[in-house]
Amino acid sequence: MEPYQLTATQALAKFKDSTLTVEEYARSLLARIAKRDDAVKAWAYLNPEYVIQQAKQLDSIPPGSRGPLHGVAIAVKDIMYTKDMPTQHNSPIYEGDEPKVDAAVVATLRHAGGLILGKTTTTEFASTATGPQTRNPHNPTRTPGGSSSGSAAAVADLQAPVALGSQTGGSTVRPGSFNGIFAYKPTWSAVSREGVKTYSMNLDTVGFFARSVQDLQLLADVFALEDDDDDDASTLQDGFSIKGSRFALVKTTVWPQAGPGTVAALGAAAKVLRDHGAEVEEIELPPEFDRMPEWHGVILDSDARATFLPEYRIAKDKLAPLIVDHVENANKISRAAQLEAFDGVAALRPLLDGIAGKYAAILTPSVIDEAPVGIEFTGSPAFNKIWTALHVPVVNIPGFKGENGMPIGLSLVAPRYRDRHLLEVSKAVGEIFQAQGGWWTRS
Amino acid sequence: MEPYQLTATQALAKFKDSTLTVEEYARSLLARIAKRDDAVKAWAYLNPEYVIQQAKQLDSIPPGSRGPLHGVAIAVKDIMYTKDMPTQHNSPIYEGDEPKVDAAVVATLRHAGGLILGKTTTTEFASTATGPQTRNPHNPTRTPGGSSSGSAAAVADLQAPVALGSQTGGSTVRPGSFNGIFAYKPTWSAVSREGVKTYSMNLDTVGFFARSVQDLQLLADVFALEDDDDDDASTLQDGFSIKGSRFALVKTTVWPQAGPGTVAALGAAAKVLRDHGAEVEEIELPPEFDRMPEWHGVILDSDARATFLPEYRIAKDKLAPLIVDHVENANKISRAAQLEAFDGVAALRPLLDGIAGKYAAILTPSVIDEAPVGIEFTGSPAFNKIWTALHVPVVNIPGFKGENGMPIGLSLVAPRYRDRHLLEVSKAVGEIFQAQGGWWTRS
Repeated sequence: MEPYQLTATQALAKFKDSTLTVEEYARSLLARIAKRDDAVKAWAYLNPEYVIQQAKQLDSIPPGSRGPLHGVAIAVKDIMYTKDMPTQHNSPIYEGDEPKVDAAVVATLRHAGGLILGKTTTTEFASTATGPQTRNPHNPTRTPGGSSSGSAAAVADLQAPVALGSQTGGSTVRPGSFNGIFAYKPTWSAVSREGVKTYSMNLDTVGFFARSVQDLQLLADVFALEDDDDDDASTLQDGFSIKGSRFALVKTTVWPQAGPGTVAALGAAAKVLRDHGAEVEEIELPPEFDRMPEWHGVILDSDARATFLPEYRIAKDKLAPLIVDHVENANKISRAAQLEAFDGVAALRPLLDGIAGKYAAILTPSVIDEAPVGIEFTGSPAFNKIWTALHVPVVNIPGFKGENGMPIGLSLVAPRYRDRHLLEVSKAVGEIFQAQGGWWTRS
Repeated sequence: MEPYQLTATQALAKFKDSTLTVEEYARSLLARIAKRDDAVKAWAYLNPEYVIQQAKQLDSIPPGSRGPLHGVAIAVKDIMYTKDMPTQHNSPIYEGDEPKVDAAVVATLRHAGGLILGKTTTTEFASTATGPQTRNPHNPTRTPGGSSSGSAAAVADLQAPVALGSQTGGSTVRPGSFNGIFAYKPTWSAVSREGVKTYSMNLDTVGFFARSVQDLQLLADVFALEDDDDDDASTLQDGFSIKGSRFALVKTTVWPQAGPGTVAALGAAAKVLRDHGAEVEEIELPPEFDRMPEWHGVILDSDARATFLPEYRIAKDKLAPLIVDHVENANKISRAAQLEAFDGVAALRPLLDGIAGKYAAILTPSVIDEAPVGIEFTGSPAFNKIWTALHVPVVNIPGFKGENGMPIGLSLVAPRYRDRHLLEVSKAVGEIFQAQGGWWTRS
């Protein structure tokens, strides 16, 4: 196995027993990137010499002083500030811009010993559904999804073990599914968004990509994510057992949009879970949840009216029409409608927590279907919006394939601040989905 | 009248009819600052030469191309990024730090033609109640309040016509009251917080200081704040008439903390309003609002656990104990308690909107009393927290004095997204409070 194929957890073990240096690891990743970059184009900025310089610096730290992520290579979505690299948001307005500051997530990872590899491509301001030049590593004629296009593609293509993304609609879970990897959107407000370009104050959430749930757990440790100490958490100390557990299968109001790949995957997933001794109960959310997709849109439009005002004023002609529409309130959303959406969703959050809390997790689609053909359109976030607005943690579990052999993942959802529980469940479910679903995350 | 005494609206008129250049204006302000800085110490960073350079640049813009704030001098709280000045958060961790980027509010003001004067003092990260070296301009033995200490003091002392602040507890309204000026906290999420140090994702709000409500309206224009077009808004096109209007007087559950100055001011204010033909009805908020102060604290603690994680990891020893406690969850707030607070407050927001919507505004205390003696403690935000957490717009209206001749303001509160309505009401109320209350905002 080449170093570039290692998960973060595996690489850490090799650094610890001195069978691999960070420099060797970095050189392996850089060679992989050099080989694959023409095909995938995941990077908005990457300076190999600087990566090696950072790696040497990390190698020079005495073993006793190393951080919990010592040497783990991390790809950063290019809407997050990095003090030593440009942050360009895939916008001509910010071409070559280089704020001398780290986003909170970058500062935290860097302090933990993370090796910041470079910046990954995004749709414009992580807002539009128009793809950058990035291609799906599993089939270059298809989109890797968005808006965290480069982060998901880089992790799937073994160019980085973990990557940072963000989700306002479906920008973490969707590319996670399209690229056949694990993607994790934590509970809203559990991870600081400081230094991440703002789209919606009520919805934006930092997200993580990895090829194993252990790697996501490693990141959850670094970001000090903790559930309450209750009976369940202590039960899970010995790992989550699928046998005897209960899952809710939730199709949601957007189910008619599901394509054959997702329909088949959801059916197969329920069967795999049942085969392993779980109870899978299909439930419908109460009818008040039917307005969630509409409300998500209203919140997005309203928040973005304020957040993109500076760019609109300074260079309206350089903004995507979608963003201009947000600021100009093209959908003519009244303040009353806006507040109805804010308050309507807020009232549903505890309701959903109550429903989800009765199960090990909610099982629900991540995407409409496989990654669509073409790189212009990054795909629909229809199945993700509701959970983003409800602020609950979501993990995309890879494991299935569509009619064209492309990966299809499914989402596991837990109540707010049950992130550690959800990750533990995801680890067990990820293993059986991948073992029986037909798609193994690459390594 | 010297140029430094002008409100923003007055200065704009002089720039328009060419009776004042921006450079003359800037020199007048700089002379005022030079004279008063030893006594007030409002600035964390100010470079007079650079201010003149910016002023000359603004003067060189042809009249037809000038922005709506052309030449208006603006003081910026030192927790907001400015691409051409350091941003130090009153923290040793960020001493001399200079991210090359503008906060969204700064970019917007700069593009509108604002002259960014410099950075004003703050408590550490706008989080603690421990004052910087700034003194109350009306009495140097007393605090100007916090956390927006320098911004409020600078505006009150005629060192800047307008200033940016922020409010997570009472950091805009409280110093507004202590310094005898207008202070405006808009509806939460109506103004982008991008590039402003995050304390609480659910509470942080950008705030504004000025010596006239017209100046606040000017800023509301620049930030595109708009109410719904309804009957009331059209009525207000001819100005708000106090005669025949109805105000709710709300003491809130923290009323027992009110000192003699605030008790007297609230009584006097009700009388002045009634004398002008308004109905003032004292009402009690429903009992479910009694938990608001507690819930505000829980939200603050919980949010700050995530937002200060990077600084805690990097330099715990350089952080105030309050901030360390946030990250370490010293108050042992469970996730369940946190969610109860999030959801409890969210459920009360529409309730409060409904109550406030029946009146021209809610009249309620801004502070416990006059600015306390000493500059170590910046005073209590007890009367502000509830409104901050409810996300409603608030304006501090100066006009009264305490037992020691120091200013005391009162808050006007409106439903969310009724900012323009609230400003119109504030203009009328500000005039009669100042005419009869004994305190005139300086000019």
